[in-house]
Amino acid sequence: MKAVSLSIAAGMVLTGLAVPALAQVEPTKQTPQSTEIWEPAVPVVTPGLYSANTAGTTPPSDAVVLFDGKNADAWVANKGYNPTNSTEPLKWPVRDGVLYSSTTSSAKTKQEFGDMQLHIEFQTPTKVEGNGQARGNSGIFLQGRYELQVLDNYNNPTYVNGMVGSIYKQAIPLVNPSRKPGEWQSYDIIYIAPRFNKAGLMLEPAYVTVLLNGVLVQNRAAIRGTTEYIGYPRVQAHGKGPLILQDHGNPVGFRNIWVREL
Amino acid sequence: MKAVSLSIAAGMVLTGLAVPALAQVEPTKQTPQSTEIWEPAVPVVTPGLYSANTAGTTPPSDAVVLFDGKNADAWVANKGYNPTNSTEPLKWPVRDGVLYSSTTSSAKTKQEFGDMQLHIEFQTPTKVEGNGQARGNSGIFLQGRYELQVLDNYNNPTYVNGMVGSIYKQAIPLVNPSRKPGEWQSYDIIYIAPRFNKAGLMLEPAYVTVLLNGVLVQNRAAIRGTTEYIGYPRVQAHGKGPLILQDHGNPVGFRNIWVREL
Amino acid sequence: MKAVSLSIAAGMVLTGLAVPALAQVEPTKQTPQSTEIWEPAVPVVTPGLYSANTAGTTPPSDAVVLFDGKNADAWVANKGYNPTNSTEPLKWPVRDGVLYSSTTSSAKTKQEFGDMQLHIEFQTPTKVEGNGQARGNSGIFLQGRYELQVLDNYNNPTYVNGMVGSIYKQAIPLVNPSRKPGEWQSYDIIYIAPRFNKAGLMLEPAYVTVLLNGVLVQNRAAIRGTTEYIGYPRVQAHGKGPLILQDHGNPVGFRNIWVREL
Amino acid sequence: MKAVSLSIAAGMVLTGLAVPALAQVEPTKQTPQSTEIWEPAVPVVTPGLYSANTAGTTPPSDAVVLFDGKNADAWVANKGYNPTNSTEPLKWPVRDGVLYSSTTSSAKTKQEFGDMQLHIEFQTPTKVEGNGQARGNSGIFLQGRYELQVLDNYNNPTYVNGMVGSIYKQAIPLVNPSRKPGEWQSYDIIYIAPRFNKAGLMLEPAYVTVLLNGVLVQNRAAIRGTTEYIGYPRVQAHGKGPLILQDHGNPVGFRNIWVREL
Repeated sequence: MKAVSLSIAAGMVLTGLAVPALAQVEPTKQTPQSTEIWEPAVPVVTPGLYSANTAGTTPPSDAVVLFDGKNADAWVANKGYNPTNSTEPLKWPVRDGVLYSSTTSSAKTKQEFGDMQLHIEFQTPTKVEGNGQARGNSGIFLQGRYELQVLDNYNNPTYVNGMVGSIYKQAIPLVNPSRKPGEWQSYDIIYIAPRFNKAGLMLEPAYVTVLLNGVLVQNRAAIRGTTEYIGYPRVQAHGKGPLILQDHGNPVGFRNIWVREL
Repeated sequence: MKAVSLSIAAGMVLTGLAVPALAQVEPTKQTPQSTEIWEPAVPVVTPGLYSANTAGTTPPSDAVVLFDGKNADAWVANKGYNPTNSTEPLKWPVRDGVLYSSTTSSAKTKQEFGDMQLHIEFQTPTKVEGNGQARGNSGIFLQGRYELQVLDNYNNPTYVNGMVGSIYKQAIPLVNPSRKPGEWQSYDIIYIAPRFNKAGLMLEPAYVTVLLNGVLVQNRAAIRGTTEYIGYPRVQAHGKGPLILQDHGNPVGFRNIWVREL
Repeated sequence: MKAVSLSIAAGMVLTGLAVPALAQVEPTKQTPQSTEIWEPAVPVVTPGLYSANTAGTTPPSDAVVLFDGKNADAWVANKGYNPTNSTEPLKWPVRDGVLYSSTTSSAKTKQEFGDMQLHIEFQTPTKVEGNGQARGNSGIFLQGRYELQVLDNYNNPTYVNGMVGSIYKQAIPLVNPSRKPGEWQSYDIIYIAPRFNKAGLMLEPAYVTVLLNGVLVQNRAAIRGTTEYIGYPRVQAHGKGPLILQDHGNPVGFRNIWVREL
Repeated sequence: MKAVSLSIAAGMVLTGLAVPALAQVEPTKQTPQSTEIWEPAVPVVTPGLYSANTAGTTPPSDAVVLFDGKNADAWVANKGYNPTNSTEPLKWPVRDGVLYSSTTSSAKTKQEFGDMQLHIEFQTPTKVEGNGQARGNSGIFLQGRYELQVLDNYNNPTYVNGMVGSIYKQAIPLVNPSRKPGEWQSYDIIYIAPRFNKAGLMLEPAYVTVLLNGVLVQNRAAIRGTTEYIGYPRVQAHGKGPLILQDHGNPVGFRNIWVREL
C-alpha cells in the first residue's frame, strides 16, 4: 500500500491539488511534536484531602462548599420535593458538625446547578427503627427533580428500584455497598444535565454515575424524567436547578457536601 | 409489604407532610391511566415522500431546505474548510437540479446549526479518474469543523479511517455500502453537538450516527475534535456552525439537502 | 519542546528500552501516511434499492430477509408477547405481498438477534375504527421484550409515552411523523443489545435509535427493561432474542422486513 | 382525556380485546406496590475503609486485590506495553509496602479483565528530575492496550493530550488535580470494554470515567483504539486483557491496587 500512497502524494504535488481533507501543503517532515495538543489549557485544581472527619476528601479548590459543618447558610427551607421559591431559613439542626434532617421541611440549596460532580456524606440513625422504606429514609434530588435514594439498607431489604443507590423507581443499583447504621457513608456523583429541545422534549437525558462508599452503583444511568412514587417519569424542560435533601421522617445526618460545576 | 406500607402511610398522614416523590399517602386506587403521560405534546411533522428524483425522502415539513435543485441561495463561497465570514456568492454551478463542487471555493451554508438530522445526496463522477483519495473526493463538515468523508470508494480502497462513511481520521465506518460511480448516494445523519465547559474543554463530545445508502456506517461515534489531515483532533469551543461542502478537485454533485433542527 | 524531546530520546536509546506507546526513539521523519489506518478491512455491502413497492430500500446484501412478500416462512405463531418455544406455523394471512396481523397469535421470528439494524414497513387499516390505543395498534418487540409501538396516530391523540414511535411507556418520541391510515410507513431501527453482568443486572442498557418515515423519533434511547402495561420495567438477563410482531385486534399490514446483524 | 380513556377501557372489556400492549386483563386496582421491582436481587458488598495508608478505600469485599503491599505475586514481567505471553517473574522491587517501577520490564497482571472498576494509587519521585514527559512518567494500560497517563504534572506543563489524566493522545482531561511530587495520588476508574463485531470493528468503543485524587478528569470518554505515540488509534478486536504498568525510566511507586469486575 505504501507505493500507492506515495504515488498519490507525488501526483498531488504535480497537479497542485490540495491533498486529502484539510491539508493544503504536503508536509516534508512530521515529528511526534506535530501530534501534541497544547490548547485549550487544562485548569489546575488543588484536590481535597482525606481526613479523620470525612469519608472521601475535603472540597477541592474549585468546589462550591454547601456544608462544611459550621452552618447551613447555603440552604433554605422548601415545602415538598419540588423546588419552590421559598427563601425561608432552614430549621434543620446543626450539631457537632452534622446537619440533621427534620420534619420542618426539606432543604434546598440557594444556588442552582447543571452539570456537576457532587460529594455528600450521610449517616442513617444508629438506633434502628422501622423496616423497608421506613428505615433511615432520605433522598438527594438532583436539579430538584431526580432522586438518588438515601436509605438504611443494611440488612434491610426493599424493592431494588427504590433501594439506596437507586435513581428512585428508574435505575436499580449494581450492588448494595451499605455501611452499618450510624456509620458515615459517601456518595460521589457525576451528573450531566438533560438537553431539552424547543418542544420541551428530552433530546438527551440526564446521565448519572454514582459511587456509594467508593463502589460503583450507577454506570451513566439515563434519567428519563422525574422520579415519581406513582406513575411514570414526567418530562419537564428546565434549566439549572437546586439540590434538595428530603426529610422522610427519619433524622438522617449530612456532612462534607460540595459541588464542582463541570 | 402492604401492611408495612400502610403503617408508614398512616404515620405520614399524622405528620401532615407534603406528598411528592416518595408519596406519603396511600392511593386507594390506581388505574392504568395513572401511568400514562400526556405532556409535553409531541409535535406533528408531515414526513417527506419517496420520489424518482430522490434517494430517501423529500424534506419533511419541519426541515430547513438547503438545496432543492433550483438554486444555491442558501450557500456562500468559503475559502478552505474552516468557516470564514465570507458572504461572497457561491460560484458552484447548478445544472439539471444538481449542485456541483468546483475549484472556486468550498460551499458554506448561511444558516448555522447545532443538534440536527441532516439528509444529503451525492454523486461522484461517472468517469472514473484517480485512485484512493484522489477519486471522487469531497466532504461534509458538520458545524464547519467535523468532516464526514465523501469519496468514490467503489472498488477503490483507501485507508479505512479516511474512506467514505468515516469521520475523517477519527472513526472507521462499520461497512462500505458504496454505490457505483455516477449513481446517487444518500447520507442520513443524526448529529448531537458537543458540550463545552467554561474552560473550553469538551464535557460531552459530538455524537454522530450515519446511514449511507440506508446502511449504518457510524453508530453514535464520539467526535473528539476537528478532523485533521495531520495531527490529532483539536478542541475549540464553539456554538452553532454552518455546513461546509468541500471541493477537493473532483466535481461531485449534490441534491436534496435538508436539515431538521433537533 | 523539541530540544527536550531530543534529549529524552537520546537517554532512551542508551538504555535500550522497548518502543511501544510513549515511544522512546525520535522518528526522523513522519509522513501523512503514518497516520493512515488500513486495518481491519471494512466489509463491502451492496446497498438496497428504492422501488415503487418499498418505503426505504430493498434489503442490502448482508441482510437477513424476514419477509419479502412471498411467504411467512421466517415466522412462527407465538402466544402473547413474551417469546415462547412455540414452533406452530403462523396463521397470519399473506395477501398481495403483505403480511397481516390476525387474532390467531402474535408472530415470532425463528431466528434470534442481538445488535441489529432493522427495517420494517407497516400499514394501519384504511378504514378508521376506534380511538386512541384502539386504532391501528400493533407493536414490534425487539429481542422479544422491548416494544416499539405501532399505532395509527394520524389525528388520533393518545398518551405520548404510548404513541407511535415510543418505546412503550419508557421513551417519548421527539415528533409524530405519522402518515395517513392506509399509507405505508417505515421504521429504521438501530438497536444495541443490553449488557448484563453476572448478577443479572444491566451494566449497559439497550440503546435504540429510530427513524419513522425517515424522521428521527428516538435518539439512542436507553431501554431499562421490559415495556410493561402496568408497573415499571423488569430486568431479565437474556441473550439473543426474536422479533415479535403484536396482534392487538386491528389488522395491521407488514412488508419489506429485513435485519442486518451489526 | 379521562373520559376518552375510560371509554376505551370500557370498549375493550365489551369486545373482549386485549388492552394496550401486554395487558390481557384490565386491573381493577393498582397499588404503589405494583410498581416495585424486587428482582433480580442486588448483591451485597462490604465497602472498603479509609485508612492512614490509603488514598481512597481499602479493597471492597468483591474486589480482586492486585497489590496489598506485601508482594507482587499477581504480576509478571512484560516486554514493552503490548501484552506478551511472558510468565517471567516481575523484578520490580517492593519496599515498605510500595511497588516501584524499574527498567527491568513493564508489569502485567496474571489475571485478565473486561468491564471493571479499578482503584490504584501512585507516587511520583519526591526528587524532581526532568521536564515535561520526562518527569515521573508511567502509565496504566487498560486491557493491555489503552493507556491512562501517569505523570508528574505538578508545575510541569506538557501537551494536554498526553498529561496526567489523559487517555494518551486521545482524550484531554477536564482539569489537572495533581498532588505534589512524592505525595500519594489515586485513580478511580470505571471502564466499559469495547464491543467488536464479526469483522473486528468496534461497534461500541471502550468508555472510561476517571477520578484523579477524587476529582473528575474523564467523563465517559470513548476510547477508539490503541493509544499510539505516533499515528492514530489502531483497532484490534480482543477479549479480556491484563493491566500493564509502564516503566518509563522514572521510579514511580504504586500501592493499594484493586479491581472489581462489573
